[in-house]
Amino acid sequence: MSGTNPFDLSRHLSSEAKARVANPMKAIWKLIQQQPNVVMLANGDPHFSLYPIRKVDFEVASIENQDPVKSWTASRLSARTLLLTSSSSNRSALPLNLGLQYANGAGRPEAQRAAAALTQFYHAPPDHITTLTLGNFDGITKCLRLLGEPGDKFLADEFAFRAVTNAGVPQGIEWISVKMDGCGMIPESLEEILVRWDEGRGKRPHVLYVVPCGQNPTGSTLSLERRRKIYEIAQLYDLVIIEDDPYYFLQYPSDPNDSSLVPSFLSLDTDGRVIRLDSLSKILAPGLRLGWLTSSAAFHEHLIALTDSSTQHPHGFGQVFLAELLSEHGWGLAGFDRWVSSLREEYRRRRDFFLEEFERRIGGSGLVNARAPEAGMFVWIRVNIEKHPRYQNGINAGDGAAARARTNVAQLMQELFMCCLDSGLVIVPASVFALSGDSVWDDSAVPIEDRVYFLRATFAGTEEIMRKGLEILANVLQTFFAE
Amino acid sequence: MSGTNPFDLSRHLSSEAKARVANPMKAIWKLIQQQPNVVMLANGDPHFSLYPIRKVDFEVASIENQDPVKSWTASRLSARTLLLTSSSSNRSALPLNLGLQYANGAGRPEAQRAAAALTQFYHAPPDHITTLTLGNFDGITKCLRLLGEPGDKFLADEFAFRAVTNAGVPQGIEWISVKMDGCGMIPESLEEILVRWDEGRGKRPHVLYVVPCGQNPTGSTLSLERRRKIYEIAQLYDLVIIEDDPYYFLQYPSDPNDSSLVPSFLSLDTDGRVIRLDSLSKILAPGLRLGWLTSSAAFHEHLIALTDSSTQHPHGFGQVFLAELLSEHGWGLAGFDRWVSSLREEYRRRRDFFLEEFERRIGGSGLVNARAPEAGMFVWIRVNIEKHPRYQNGINAGDGAAARARTNVAQLMQELFMCCLDSGLVIVPASVFALSGDSVWDDSAVPIEDRVYFLRATFAGTEEIMRKGLEILANVLQTFFAE
Ligand SMILES: Cc1ncc(COP(=O)(O)O)c(C=O)c1O
Ligand SMILES: Cc1ncc(COP(=O)(O)O)c(C=O)c1O
Repeated sequence: MSGTNPFDLSRHLSSEAKARVANPMKAIWKLIQQQPNVVMLANGDPHFSLYPIRKVDFEVASIENQDPVKSWTASRLSARTLLLTSSSSNRSALPLNLGLQYANGAGRPEAQRAAAALTQFYHAPPDHITTLTLGNFDGITKCLRLLGEPGDKFLADEFAFRAVTNAGVPQGIEWISVKMDGCGMIPESLEEILVRWDEGRGKRPHVLYVVPCGQNPTGSTLSLERRRKIYEIAQLYDLVIIEDDPYYFLQYPSDPNDSSLVPSFLSLDTDGRVIRLDSLSKILAPGLRLGWLTSSAAFHEHLIALTDSSTQHPHGFGQVFLAELLSEHGWGLAGFDRWVSSLREEYRRRRDFFLEEFERRIGGSGLVNARAPEAGMFVWIRVNIEKHPRYQNGINAGDGAAARARTNVAQLMQELFMCCLDSGLVIVPASVFALSGDSVWDDSAVPIEDRVYFLRATFAGTEEIMRKGLEILANVLQTFFAE
Repeated sequence: MSGTNPFDLSRHLSSEAKARVANPMKAIWKLIQQQPNVVMLANGDPHFSLYPIRKVDFEVASIENQDPVKSWTASRLSARTLLLTSSSSNRSALPLNLGLQYANGAGRPEAQRAAAALTQFYHAPPDHITTLTLGNFDGITKCLRLLGEPGDKFLADEFAFRAVTNAGVPQGIEWISVKMDGCGMIPESLEEILVRWDEGRGKRPHVLYVVPCGQNPTGSTLSLERRRKIYEIAQLYDLVIIEDDPYYFLQYPSDPNDSSLVPSFLSLDTDGRVIRLDSLSKILAPGLRLGWLTSSAAFHEHLIALTDSSTQHPHGFGQVFLAELLSEHGWGLAGFDRWVSSLREEYRRRRDFFLEEFERRIGGSGLVNARAPEAGMFVWIRVNIEKHPRYQNGINAGDGAAARARTNVAQLMQELFMCCLDSGLVIVPASVFALSGDSVWDDSAVPIEDRVYFLRATFAGTEEIMRKGLEILANVLQTFFAE
């Protein structure tokens, strides 16, 4: 999938990325590659005969059954398993002696190829290269370093995964929020910001961070139509799109017989302007700390340079695990697909359970409502806070960022959050995610401070947890609004 | 080992570190910790029943034998092993369901405690906290972010591990080189730089990067006396010391009955100004990508904030491995100590083998000489390039950084390197490591460009590799000098 790219990407790189000096050893390695049988007295690499680890076995779920997640969770300890083994034997997909040696930033070729095969299968991007990461968070923060300059303004959803946006702040990135509705980022709002941009106030944004499926926190999923529009805007205004898509495999289209997944930005990317991030966190386990990033060759080169001079290549056990899992002795690609399809059904059941409980317990109250998310793990609950006896509008609510607020929504929602907590329920208030937009661009009638009347709840837990949680929420809401 | 620290460290932090904004979720987690039995509808954390991994087994070397490395390498596939297992059973030192969940930057407490126990055992630092890292390289680059400001000048050995110094360059760190002799960094040279510092040329350096044992590339080890002097200078001039010590466990004191290890800077650190980095790379396997960093509480706090917003906590398999290995079902601390002691003897044998071959094949030539390193994996070979027929002195050798050179040492050494490569030997020329000092501080009669007459060779390989490599080197040297 490597190759040249028509789109010149270098102007998007940060001066930090451009200032990265090549390791002088690199030139030496290049020379060595032309020399087939060299004797190495060069590097302080312990010889593998001194690694005190002979073999690693991972006992994983079998995917023989048509619905492997169901049998895995139902049969529990008696569920069938498959043993993935790596040793120094060359029957290993990634032999341990190689997996436990130093490697380079992109990852061992065996593991990198396994991840690339997934990308090829699901997205068939025009012309991109895969780099292993330590999960999407690591991948995104590397992109911020690669693309972000102090003072740069980047675009994101107005309710965003704050851990990511916060991570950009110390390096001087400012975030400009794009309006959302129930279907995610509104392309017209994105375009408006760019059309009306006044260069006198700083460089126009050149990066858009977007979570296309089951967005965190709103649970919204961008339709193909919106994706196309956003991509066109990106072409028009020369944006790089960071596509953070950990919930890609967890899509629940309204027609349950429709098993298709919405095409990713990557799959539409003829220009090489999309950097896509995939993660094993939500589909296998978050503690694996493994994911992969797909980008144009030009970005790839800078990414591995950055990786080589920061985290270095991902951990050997994870790479071995990935390579073995996707090999013919493991799940293979077909088995992986069966697992994620089955997992999708499992989460769809959980989502439906959540929504039924929600409807049954609080649906009739008129105090809250929620729409069924088409992907991910989150339900975004609209609290009809305007019905609260102490709700106020047309006031001057605070100073600092809150100066624009004309209501006491933020304060009431904070009270509601504390009431939940006091009753033993943790649910996340929207204020945690609200990107306080630059008011110069944000002339909407209602500033975000007055629209934080949402709660983020997850259906990732067990039925027991959901039942208990929603019971508490119902009680708290009754009391809180009945004041 | 936590506690307050008398030394105010905050002035050493970069503005980037200080600008890091707290994740608003953190405040919520604080509240939750006061609430014992909460129902969590908060986070998108997959439930562990959905992780398709039931068990992981690591087959590691047994440490029952007194000299476990010897029996491991001698008996190879028939060598005795020990099985480390982690599952969701609570007999696991770090159960897999916890190890594979999201955690925080410092690492799971079980693994963090295991690393802290090693630090306590070997260094007994006055008042420090341990944070897990992805190996020393990751740890150092995080320290650079934590302490470095664009334009800052940091101190390092004049021949340094360039991957580290280069990593600081894109963020604007400039390196000032400190003179070395066969015993490593010269304390008097360090002091001279600081005494003579002219603030008009920029802020005085506040960070010293040092590799105290088996320095890469020179193989030198700082004596306890030098360490004390350097620490005193650090106190006087308020330096933070980054102690990068991957070769700590590979020390070969001249008296083979002396099994003591030179005390680390950390063990001397009453002020909290030492940040020490330990790695599993050289003693277990580099692909593990796991290490730990020991610092004062004030630095620790900023480190985990940085980790939480970049790499995130280290991979679960590695943490599980470390926790199990050091548990009573694994090697335990005593077993670990036996392994590293035995490994030390193994590398001492390799070093001695290397030096004997070196002496036998080229020792008499008068063209090169080398001193026996007291730690690590490297021999620093002095090439007596002055004996080369084309050696020139008192010339004007080049422009740019090389303008200070008065000899053609750099050019001849490059030729020698290429001759080695053409004959099938990879050995690293000193120019790769030479930090071109700021000439204003460096008024030594002979600039570093004229002192790159060294080659770095490693004895980490097998005897076969060393024998072949030194044979080639001997032949190349004869031909090269006989021109
Ligand atoms: C939108 C989004 N991006 C990234 C992440 C982090 O993913 P990873 O575990 O792969 O770093 C999360 C996790 O909650 C998320 O919701
Ligand atoms: C001095 C020094 N520091 C750090 C490292 C890298 O260590 P790690 O593998 O723990 O990142 C090396 C590896 O060669 C080294 O020689």
